[in-house]
Amino acid sequence: MGIIVQKFGGTSVADPQKIHNVANAVIREKENGNDVIVVVSAMGHTTDYLIKLAKDVTLTPDSREMDMLLSTGEQVSIALLAMAIQSHGYKAISMNGQQVGIITENIHSKARIVDIKTDKLQKHLKEGNIIVVAGFQGVTTDGEITTLGRGGSDTSAVAIAAAMKADRCDIYTDVEGVYATDPRIVPNVQRAEVISYEEMLELARVGANVLHPRSVETAKQFNVPLRVRSSFKLDNMGTLIIGVEKMEIYKPVAGVAADSSQVRILLSNLPDIPGTAAKLFGALAKNNISVDMIIQSLASNGTNSIAFTVDAEDLDAALKTLNDEKSSVRAAEILIDKDIAKVSIVGAGMVDRPGIAADMFRALAEKNINIKMISTSEIKISCLVDKNNANEAIKALCKEFGLESTEIAEVKGDLPNV
Amino acid sequence: MGIIVQKFGGTSVADPQKIHNVANAVIREKENGNDVIVVVSAMGHTTDYLIKLAKDVTLTPDSREMDMLLSTGEQVSIALLAMAIQSHGYKAISMNGQQVGIITENIHSKARIVDIKTDKLQKHLKEGNIIVVAGFQGVTTDGEITTLGRGGSDTSAVAIAAAMKADRCDIYTDVEGVYATDPRIVPNVQRAEVISYEEMLELARVGANVLHPRSVETAKQFNVPLRVRSSFKLDNMGTLIIGVEKMEIYKPVAGVAADSSQVRILLSNLPDIPGTAAKLFGALAKNNISVDMIIQSLASNGTNSIAFTVDAEDLDAALKTLNDEKSSVRAAEILIDKDIAKVSIVGAGMVDRPGIAADMFRALAEKNINIKMISTSEIKISCLVDKNNANEAIKALCKEFGLESTEIAEVKGDLPNV
Repeated sequence: MGIIVQKFGGTSVADPQKIHNVANAVIREKENGNDVIVVVSAMGHTTDYLIKLAKDVTLTPDSREMDMLLSTGEQVSIALLAMAIQSHGYKAISMNGQQVGIITENIHSKARIVDIKTDKLQKHLKEGNIIVVAGFQGVTTDGEITTLGRGGSDTSAVAIAAAMKADRCDIYTDVEGVYATDPRIVPNVQRAEVISYEEMLELARVGANVLHPRSVETAKQFNVPLRVRSSFKLDNMGTLIIGVEKMEIYKPVAGVAADSSQVRILLSNLPDIPGTAAKLFGALAKNNISVDMIIQSLASNGTNSIAFTVDAEDLDAALKTLNDEKSSVRAAEILIDKDIAKVSIVGAGMVDRPGIAADMFRALAEKNINIKMISTSEIKISCLVDKNNANEAIKALCKEFGLESTEIAEVKGDLPNV
Repeated sequence: MGIIVQKFGGTSVADPQKIHNVANAVIREKENGNDVIVVVSAMGHTTDYLIKLAKDVTLTPDSREMDMLLSTGEQVSIALLAMAIQSHGYKAISMNGQQVGIITENIHSKARIVDIKTDKLQKHLKEGNIIVVAGFQGVTTDGEITTLGRGGSDTSAVAIAAAMKADRCDIYTDVEGVYATDPRIVPNVQRAEVISYEEMLELARVGANVLHPRSVETAKQFNVPLRVRSSFKLDNMGTLIIGVEKMEIYKPVAGVAADSSQVRILLSNLPDIPGTAAKLFGALAKNNISVDMIIQSLASNGTNSIAFTVDAEDLDAALKTLNDEKSSVRAAEILIDKDIAKVSIVGAGMVDRPGIAADMFRALAEKNINIKMISTSEIKISCLVDKNNANEAIKALCKEFGLESTEIAEVKGDLPNV
C-alpha cells in the first residue's frame, strides 16, 4: 500500500457526468489499496470565462486580482469532485492551495512552488480520506493567492507527489500515453511504454505537447515516477516516465517531433571581424528574445552570414533589435524565412551509438527533403526543413528508427499545422 | 476622516457594468475623505448556478464541500470589483474570508462569526487601499471555509464595521430605505429617516424584508450605525438605524407590516384541567416547531379552546405532533385556517403612549375588518385578520398613524401576496 497522486485536467471534469467518471477512476485506485491524492484543474472553459469577465471589467487587470479570480475555478471543481466521490460511499475532502499549504514565490500569474506542507495531507490520509487538491494555485507565506502559470496543474501534482514521497504520479489526459511522434501524422506510431525524463523533456521542447517541461523537470529533480495515461481507457497503463538508471533497455531514438512555430532570420554579407556574433546575440538577449538554432558560415568573398531561428511571435521584436544594431554590425541584408519546420529526433540512446545523425540525414535525403540548418544536443538532433516537407520527414524518420507499430493509435483533433 | 463599511448585494454586482457603478459609489465615499471597506456578495445568480451544479453531482451534497463551492462566488466578485476600482485610478485590494480572518464557529452552511482579525485590514487601509471583502464567508481556526447562511453578507459587513470601529455601515439595496410599510401597498408611505435597532428588528420579524434580523442584532450589540440606502440613487441618504438613546424624536408607530406566511390552528373542546397547554406546547417545542401567537379561552360549557399560529411550512409537522398528543390532551377537534395574515404596528414610542392599541383596533373596526387574534410586545401590536383584508388593514393603519407622505415611493416588483 502506497500513495498515488492522480491529476485530471479541465476537459476531464467539464460536467457533472465527467466528474463522476473521474470519481470512478479515483475510487479504482483507492480500491487497489492505495492512499489517493487527486489534483484537478478548473472545469472545461471556466478559466476562459473568468478571463473574459475580467477583460469586460478592465483591459489591464491587476495580476494579483487575476489570481484571486482564476483560483476560484479549481475550487469549484475540487468541491464537486469531493461530493461525487462521497456520493459513491467513500470519504473525501477537498483542499485549496491555501489549505494544503502549497507555498510559492510572491509572484503572480506564474509563481513557482517553493514548498508543500504535508501535515494536513498526512492527517486527512490517515483518517481514510481521498484528498482532492486544487491544481494550478498556491499561496505565499503572507497568505496571498498565486497561480502557477502554464503547466501549473501538472506541476502541482508532481510537486505534491514529491513532497508526499508518493509511489507514482499519474497524469490523466485525452491521449493514451507518449507517442514517438504525433499519431495524427503517423497513425501507426508506437506508444512508448517507458521513456526517460530527459527524452520527455527534449520531446516537449521540440513540440510534443503531452506534458509541460516544467512538470517533467520537477519529476526528474525529485525522481517521481510519472505516468501519462488515458482518462477514457483506465485499463491502459499509458507511458511511464522515469530516470534513465531505472530503465533496462531503451531505443536509440525514442521520438520524432516537429515544431513549426519558429522563423529563420538570415543576415548576409557581414564583415568577418571578431565580436560581430557577440554584439548581435547580446542585443537579442538584452531584449529577452530566445534564439534557438544558429549557423555561421564564411562566404567566398570574405564576408560572413549568420542564420538563426526565433519564435514567430518574437519576429517583430527581433527585427526591431536588428535594425537598431544594423549599422554597428553593418549587415548588408536581412532575409526572413517563415515557411520552416524544425524536425527533431530524441533519444537517450544516441549517446552510445554513433551514426544516428548520419541515418537521419540519409533518410531525409532519400525523400528529397532539403536540410536548411542542423543543431544537435546530447540526446537530440534537429533539422530545419521546408514546412511542407515536415509531415513527410516525420513519417520517414519513424520508419527509419523503427517507431511504427502494428496498432493504429486513436486520437482526436485535426492534423497539426506543421 | 473615518472608516465607512459599505455592502452591496448580488444584484448590484451582477455584470461588469454594474460592478463599475459600485466602483463609483465606493470611490465617492473615498473622495469624501473616508477609509472604505466594501463587502460584496456573489454576482447575480452565481450562487443558484453553483447550487444547481452540486445538485447535478449529488442530491445530498456534503455541507463542508458546499461551503468550499459557494465561497468561490464572492471571491469572483471581490476580484472583479477590485479590478474595476483600480481601473479608475484608485488603490484597491480584495480579500476573502480566509485572508481577512473572519473567524466563525466550526459549523457549515450557517456559521456564526466569532471574531474578526483587524491587523491586515488596518495595514491595507494604512497603505491607502480601498479593501474589497468577500461577504457571507468565514474560516474556522482550523482553516476550514464556512458560509454564514441567510443574511450572511449583511452580517459580514456589520461585524467588520464593529471590529474596525467604523463610523457607519451602509447597506446598499434596491430600495431607497426603510418604509413604514410596503410601498407596493401604500405608494405614498413615508420613508423613515431614522429608526431604532429595536423597531427595525420588530419590523423584520413581522415581514419587512429589507434587512435580516441577524445583521440588525449584531449592529445593535456593537452599536454600529447602519444606513439602508439605494444603490441607484447615491444622493439619497436612505434610512439610518441607530440606538434609541441617539434618537431625539420618534413617532409612536414607526412601521406597519403584514406577514401571511402563518397558519392558525384551533383546538376546541379541550378539558379545562391544568397542564393541558404545557403538554401541547411542550410537544411542539420538542419537535422544533416555533409557535407565534397563542390565545386560550374558556367556553360557556366549561371546555377550553386554544388557538395558535405556526409557519405554514411547519403545518404538517405540527399536525403530526398534535395527532400524537391528541389522546393525552383529549381535544375534540382540530381546525386549520390558512387564509390569515398577521398585521403589525411597530414603534419604540408605544412604550410611553397609552391608547395606541385601542387606536389600532378602532381603525380596523372602522373598515369592518374582523380581528381573530391579538398579541402584543413592548414595541409591537399584532392582529390576525383574514388574508384578503390585509392590504386594506395596512392602508388604514398607515393613515391612522400618520405614516403617509406627499411623495410616491418608487419600487420595483409585484404586489406581495398578503
